[in-house]
Amino acid sequence: MKSVFKKSLSLTVLASSLLSLGASAAPANDPATLGQIRDSAMNSDWAYERLADLTDLVGPRLSGSVGAQAAVEQVSAAMRKLGAKVTLQPVKVPHWVRGEEKAEVVEYAGRPNGVTQKVVLTALGGSGATPAAGLTAPVIVVHSFEELKAKGAQVKGSIVLFDVAFDQEMADRGQAGPAYGAGSRIRTQGPRLAAEMGAAAALVRSVGGANYRIAHTGATGLVDGARIPAAAVTAEDAMLMSRLSARGPLKLHLTLTPQTLPDADSFNVIADWPGTDKADEVVIVSGHLDSWDLATGAHDDGTGVAGAMGVIETLKKLDLHPRRTIRVIAWMNEENGTRGGKAYFEANKDKLDKHFAAIESDEGGGRPFGFIASVTPQMVKYFAPLKTALDPIGAGVFQRHDQAAGADIGPLERAGVPSFQPLVDASFYFSYHHTPADTLDKVSPLELKRHVAVMTSLSWFLANMDENIGRVAKTD
Amino acid sequence: MKSVFKKSLSLTVLASSLLSLGASAAPANDPATLGQIRDSAMNSDWAYERLADLTDLVGPRLSGSVGAQAAVEQVSAAMRKLGAKVTLQPVKVPHWVRGEEKAEVVEYAGRPNGVTQKVVLTALGGSGATPAAGLTAPVIVVHSFEELKAKGAQVKGSIVLFDVAFDQEMADRGQAGPAYGAGSRIRTQGPRLAAEMGAAAALVRSVGGANYRIAHTGATGLVDGARIPAAAVTAEDAMLMSRLSARGPLKLHLTLTPQTLPDADSFNVIADWPGTDKADEVVIVSGHLDSWDLATGAHDDGTGVAGAMGVIETLKKLDLHPRRTIRVIAWMNEENGTRGGKAYFEANKDKLDKHFAAIESDEGGGRPFGFIASVTPQMVKYFAPLKTALDPIGAGVFQRHDQAAGADIGPLERAGVPSFQPLVDASFYFSYHHTPADTLDKVSPLELKRHVAVMTSLSWFLANMDENIGRVAKTD
Ligand SMILES: [Zn+2]
Ligand SMILES: [Zn+2]
Repeated sequence: MKSVFKKSLSLTVLASSLLSLGASAAPANDPATLGQIRDSAMNSDWAYERLADLTDLVGPRLSGSVGAQAAVEQVSAAMRKLGAKVTLQPVKVPHWVRGEEKAEVVEYAGRPNGVTQKVVLTALGGSGATPAAGLTAPVIVVHSFEELKAKGAQVKGSIVLFDVAFDQEMADRGQAGPAYGAGSRIRTQGPRLAAEMGAAAALVRSVGGANYRIAHTGATGLVDGARIPAAAVTAEDAMLMSRLSARGPLKLHLTLTPQTLPDADSFNVIADWPGTDKADEVVIVSGHLDSWDLATGAHDDGTGVAGAMGVIETLKKLDLHPRRTIRVIAWMNEENGTRGGKAYFEANKDKLDKHFAAIESDEGGGRPFGFIASVTPQMVKYFAPLKTALDPIGAGVFQRHDQAAGADIGPLERAGVPSFQPLVDASFYFSYHHTPADTLDKVSPLELKRHVAVMTSLSWFLANMDENIGRVAKTD
Repeated sequence: MKSVFKKSLSLTVLASSLLSLGASAAPANDPATLGQIRDSAMNSDWAYERLADLTDLVGPRLSGSVGAQAAVEQVSAAMRKLGAKVTLQPVKVPHWVRGEEKAEVVEYAGRPNGVTQKVVLTALGGSGATPAAGLTAPVIVVHSFEELKAKGAQVKGSIVLFDVAFDQEMADRGQAGPAYGAGSRIRTQGPRLAAEMGAAAALVRSVGGANYRIAHTGATGLVDGARIPAAAVTAEDAMLMSRLSARGPLKLHLTLTPQTLPDADSFNVIADWPGTDKADEVVIVSGHLDSWDLATGAHDDGTGVAGAMGVIETLKKLDLHPRRTIRVIAWMNEENGTRGGKAYFEANKDKLDKHFAAIESDEGGGRPFGFIASVTPQMVKYFAPLKTALDPIGAGVFQRHDQAAGADIGPLERAGVPSFQPLVDASFYFSYHHTPADTLDKVSPLELKRHVAVMTSLSWFLANMDENIGRVAKTD
């Protein structure tokens, strides 16, 4: 998953936010050191090796699973091996387990005797279950919440299909986040609305740009007491049911048997690379360790975790020690609860003034062009040395936004901690995200090196800045 | 499936085979009529509607299935409605039924306690079965038959994985057929070789260019008595097992429970549009009606069947009656036995001299550029009017080859009947072919119109030619 906010890769933004010359770098932020960091990251396979360990050896790591626990142990061990100070912060996480999942259209106009049409789907996280033998109900196809509401009493006892296509062209234009936001709104809110109206089950067209008949899972916002079966169907099968419904009424036989188990014990992995004279202040650099269960979460968010881990590897190799503590966090439970981010905020809410900045990478391992920051417009000029250091690898773009947080650092961000994330090409991210195809082979080793270069340069720079970049807390 | 032969979309071929002017068209082959045919096809949705009926209402149609029988009935009814003379030619077909299919890597170096890695796969047509509870065996990864042979006694009791990547770049260069040929050779011959060496099961890397973790099925050449379990794994899972095997030995737990049932009764659908003064001579225009079971066979070979059906619709609409009989055939069992093509040949081997030409379309519904013909070089010039008629829709390319047959018309072709097929852009065909993603939404309605224009123009032209284009039978 990822936070959704307006952003653009457009280079016009670059032009308007070009860093002015003459900003004074902190002594530790000299160009030579920043150049060393960049070059070291661009020459290291270490982060990719960690990503391979995480995806090939551990694999899927949905909260509460044996994989999630193995990931906590693997990342902790790798961080300890580098000499980082590792803490496991306990987090109680939701424990939802996928079951059997299958469906077929069993009645439709023009159906030859004995023929049914298979529908490929996958349960959404938090879905309720059908009876073990499945349920059969009429399908109502809608394209918006308004259209659903207009159906009124018809919805009761029916299976609602939200057939809303992902806007891949928008994603291709550099607006992947907003394209995903529009689709994920249907996924998170649609099933609950359908449940409130008495639907027997809810289906959403997969939120993603792939056209290879794969289903994209994700969390949905069902609540206890109205936890109807809810699944994502492939784009192909949503289109099939829409076409069949244009020929006449249709019925689906649906079997989904996921289980919601008691909350499980898990952890945020926190690895500190201690600061020097300002060691009590921290700069967080992070990704989320949990993944959906369908694949090995290579892009979502293996690249974020491996990128953050690579920060410490780079600094250790160069024997660099920042003024502030650089805190790598591998968050638990971003995908279906954000419990890790919430637990960290609760434990640290009296120390927010000691949180200088927070970085999270959760838009996949596409090519990084620079970074996005929620600093005030007045602060932009102080980041000029980073542009100079990262331009040689094509990653010097700086975008300012009022909110730039990943989901896990959202509570910190809303409390006024400046947040940062790499600015990456996410045009293909939502083709793989939350599907069985989010696997190691999709990650470019070169782009991951760039990713580490951006994450390390930015972490180092923030940890040594003289200027106070603190913001005022959001009031909304 | 499709026949495999060398061909190229390269326009240099066009240049060297450009039709000379001055060829004398038969009276019925006047430019005005050819233009009417082209324009009528380009303005008709009829073939696409038939493709929608075939894929949405019937769906998958593997030989012996209820879908295959429904397809026979649907196509027959549509052809009768146009006034064609329909015959159902009985064909005994193999009846293979997919069962449960799943696999996971249960042992590998570096495996955290309790963790296994899922492998996505699908049984190959003709695969044998594992015990119902599956089997567990070491995996041996090889990249060629030679490498397998070199493994010797190690193979006994192991699961052999042929990890040979599909060459998508070759397909993108217009060499999709040869790229597929290289891969399908592994798929058809590899499992049998592994069985001969005592392997417990055989896996092939999917033969196709998709990178969305989908498995590509297809026929394999196992023989009774050595029918080991055989499956295609996704490219991603082949790469995973290769990477894990580089870390140390691994074991797979594999469950495949397909069944080979007794041969079933089925049919070729033969629909004649009778000729006038040469009605006893026939021009076949065809596609195959069966499909793999994973999808609705929209490209493979729904477009071939719909394109052939569209020939009669176009001629009927224009009230055109050719000198020779135009015979639309929807072949049964191309995918796993070619029994339909063989049965037709057996029934007609005394009438080969009455088979003027045979067309088969089985490379999908990508953009047509013209056609490929197995006529002699001396005959090329007589096809000039077709180029004139089809150039305005970008489909006037003529390629001559020594063998241009689809699989079903192969026996006719080898006996000397000139064979033809549309020349199409197949660069993406093998990304969808034999996968769950070969669905209606992948077919462009516009390209299907072009397809009908090429098929109808070519059929009509052949059915009215004065020149004898007969070849000498192949001796090999
Ligand atoms: Zn994520
Ligand atoms: Zn085919």
